[in-house]
Amino acid sequence: MTAPDLSSLTASLPPGMVIVDPDILAAYRYDRANDPDAGTPLALVRTMTTEHVQTTVRWCAEAGIPLVTRGTGTSLSGGSTAVDGAVMLSTEKMRQLTIDTATRTAVSQPGMLNAEVKQAAADKGLWYPPDPSSFEICSIGGNVATNAGGLCCVKYGVTVDYVLGLQVVLADGRALRIGGKQLKDSAGLPLTKMFVGSEGLLGIITEVTLRLLPPQAPACTVVGAFPTVRAASEAVLAVTAKLRPAMLEFMDGVSINAVEDMLKTGLNREAGALLVAQSDAPGPAGEAEVALIEEAFRGCGGEDVFSTSDPAESEAFTVARRMAIPAVEKLGALLLEDVGVPLPALPDLIDAVKAIADENDVLISVIAHAGDGNTHPLIVHDPTDPDEVARANRAFGQIMDLAVSLGGTITGEHGVGRLKKGWLRDQVGDDVMDLMATIKQALDPQGLLNPGVMLG
Amino acid sequence: MTAPDLSSLTASLPPGMVIVDPDILAAYRYDRANDPDAGTPLALVRTMTTEHVQTTVRWCAEAGIPLVTRGTGTSLSGGSTAVDGAVMLSTEKMRQLTIDTATRTAVSQPGMLNAEVKQAAADKGLWYPPDPSSFEICSIGGNVATNAGGLCCVKYGVTVDYVLGLQVVLADGRALRIGGKQLKDSAGLPLTKMFVGSEGLLGIITEVTLRLLPPQAPACTVVGAFPTVRAASEAVLAVTAKLRPAMLEFMDGVSINAVEDMLKTGLNREAGALLVAQSDAPGPAGEAEVALIEEAFRGCGGEDVFSTSDPAESEAFTVARRMAIPAVEKLGALLLEDVGVPLPALPDLIDAVKAIADENDVLISVIAHAGDGNTHPLIVHDPTDPDEVARANRAFGQIMDLAVSLGGTITGEHGVGRLKKGWLRDQVGDDVMDLMATIKQALDPQGLLNPGVMLG
Repeated sequence: MTAPDLSSLTASLPPGMVIVDPDILAAYRYDRANDPDAGTPLALVRTMTTEHVQTTVRWCAEAGIPLVTRGTGTSLSGGSTAVDGAVMLSTEKMRQLTIDTATRTAVSQPGMLNAEVKQAAADKGLWYPPDPSSFEICSIGGNVATNAGGLCCVKYGVTVDYVLGLQVVLADGRALRIGGKQLKDSAGLPLTKMFVGSEGLLGIITEVTLRLLPPQAPACTVVGAFPTVRAASEAVLAVTAKLRPAMLEFMDGVSINAVEDMLKTGLNREAGALLVAQSDAPGPAGEAEVALIEEAFRGCGGEDVFSTSDPAESEAFTVARRMAIPAVEKLGALLLEDVGVPLPALPDLIDAVKAIADENDVLISVIAHAGDGNTHPLIVHDPTDPDEVARANRAFGQIMDLAVSLGGTITGEHGVGRLKKGWLRDQVGDDVMDLMATIKQALDPQGLLNPGVMLG
Repeated sequence: MTAPDLSSLTASLPPGMVIVDPDILAAYRYDRANDPDAGTPLALVRTMTTEHVQTTVRWCAEAGIPLVTRGTGTSLSGGSTAVDGAVMLSTEKMRQLTIDTATRTAVSQPGMLNAEVKQAAADKGLWYPPDPSSFEICSIGGNVATNAGGLCCVKYGVTVDYVLGLQVVLADGRALRIGGKQLKDSAGLPLTKMFVGSEGLLGIITEVTLRLLPPQAPACTVVGAFPTVRAASEAVLAVTAKLRPAMLEFMDGVSINAVEDMLKTGLNREAGALLVAQSDAPGPAGEAEVALIEEAFRGCGGEDVFSTSDPAESEAFTVARRMAIPAVEKLGALLLEDVGVPLPALPDLIDAVKAIADENDVLISVIAHAGDGNTHPLIVHDPTDPDEVARANRAFGQIMDLAVSLGGTITGEHGVGRLKKGWLRDQVGDDVMDLMATIKQALDPQGLLNPGVMLG
């Protein structure tokens, strides 16, 4: 089979925009999920405008060539893994961003980093809340495509709660504007929300309009060490029964030690688990919340319970939690889970994950956005040991089965991607799978957009 | 043409559930939009369970008979107006409701009133924020179908922000559960959000899972009278430039006097406009917000600026605002607008509405959820005067044209229904209309669900 002729695509885009250099293509094969089955793209197109995206999509539609959209490639579930023979459309050069203080909105092309949107908003006295741990390296387009979450979501919601409008290129190349800067809009079917979390299956997002908030009040941080993961997870429920914290994060002993090895911030290496909570309620209300959190921690066996309103000290604990994934990654290759459950099931989930680790004789470190029931069990394994890889993969599936059995989700914030699609049907059922396929078929009849993700 | 034979439907539902008594049917022709073109239903079915809904939908699909779903019939844009020869499915008897304090969720059948959900949550120490002015008479199913807003939305968001899960009966009669009690869920296409605001076109909602919040802190209310509507709308911008109020409502002189005639609460009848704002920030932060609001009001010419933390006094002003529509309705029949604009365009919108009133020689009272740019111009007219009706209708269209020209929306929270569909294309454009039609076609190929609404 001969490779498709790219000359008409190359000719209709600016010089150098279509790249076929194998060395460059190789760098676009993998995302952070490191899928061993990653393909090699036919070509890389680094678009800069909506029109470039339209040109590329139309060429693919005419040639029947699949297309994978990629932001900065930080997907942890293989949502932007390359596919053999597909065009890889990278949004990394789509970097226009404006902040409108009058309407309190940001209008951003997809290639801006989450941290850059946050910073630009902050420069104008505003705040973009969603804060995935990867906020310094993940793109806002990818955030929208996966409905990304983060640490402050327990109080401030996830990406979909901030998306007011989109420009989207459909599978036939038409560019649509949906929604806009108005805060309330009930005109027509709710298309804007339909694209948030659609993982590149329904269209390519070329511009997002985001709602911004007034700046967050200074937060006070409460930290507690717990003898067991069970005790810490029960403390999570004790806190959320009383108030809505601005952050409530969980680290188990493995991740505490991995972070401590890396950052040496003085975390308690003996602890079974650590909770890091924040209150951003102002004044006496904040003091009352901190007291309630401390009481809940101590009531569940928390030790070294400690609170601080010093921003640098607070930030150190937040960084410790954010660095947990890279720190645990130093112990071995990771299979990264993102399972969530209704909050009351959190202690059972965390206990059962430990049982799965024992049963499969693999190391699993659990970190969690505990306040919203979203956990990241990290399955550490040696990729050169086939038996251990097999045991890690078995644990990976068992943890998703477990979450589904507890009424939860196989992915709280990362998306299904290519890695978790085998478990989606178990969670949502045949009829919901059918409905998803119906919508995909209606919007992308050729099935060219991000094939192999979610439904493939 | 003979009427379709209902016997197989009647036989497959409990005795008395299918109603054909003309007197009863007559009471189900109109909703609060009072569409003069309302039809007469073939039959009324007051379902009690999801299975009853499935039976009804399957019978309609087989017979090719259209179906209109109705909650409590409070639609202001004709979303639940009867259609000649269609089955009217009423959810008014679907009244199961449970509050789960452990997950902070409410699971409700669609026929519960918004106020009942609020009260049941409050009884368990929780809060369901969305608060349409009609909250005492509108159903939660209708709220979800229109993505209803309200007074507190300026700070707390609209219905879609609280919907975690749904049970939906599709046009082919299949019942689907989508989403659930987990706060974060990125598993699969975002179907839950796709149904919120879909106005009965894509399926029939038979159960909703709603996120609840901890109780709102006691609010402090600030009231200011302004010499002109322009001055008041500029004060809105001055407030929102400084903070995010928990409420920021606008009434013009006509509505002030109409409410005062009705309630006699001592509002300033001479004022050109009144603003009612609230802060629910606790302690000193709240005091600071109140001071900023007072300063913004006075800086824009506000008189009699007054604040109170007395709950009864606060509630009196909120009730005054909520009663504005019924009060103005005493002046004549209403054409009720729901246009919204990005906030900076609010003064221009309100000014131009007054010009439209003068041009067409009709009385238009403007009330508004001003803090989010969502206004309700109320076009008062004598329905027995054909010339005045024609002028009112012309003004109705001109106001929607105006909102679109200012980058806004023809409906912020009521939905398109049957009354506004002639303007939807102007707002969203041909390609977006096509996409909506594509989705409608994919989910309801026979076009039987709520025909004539939005796209019909």
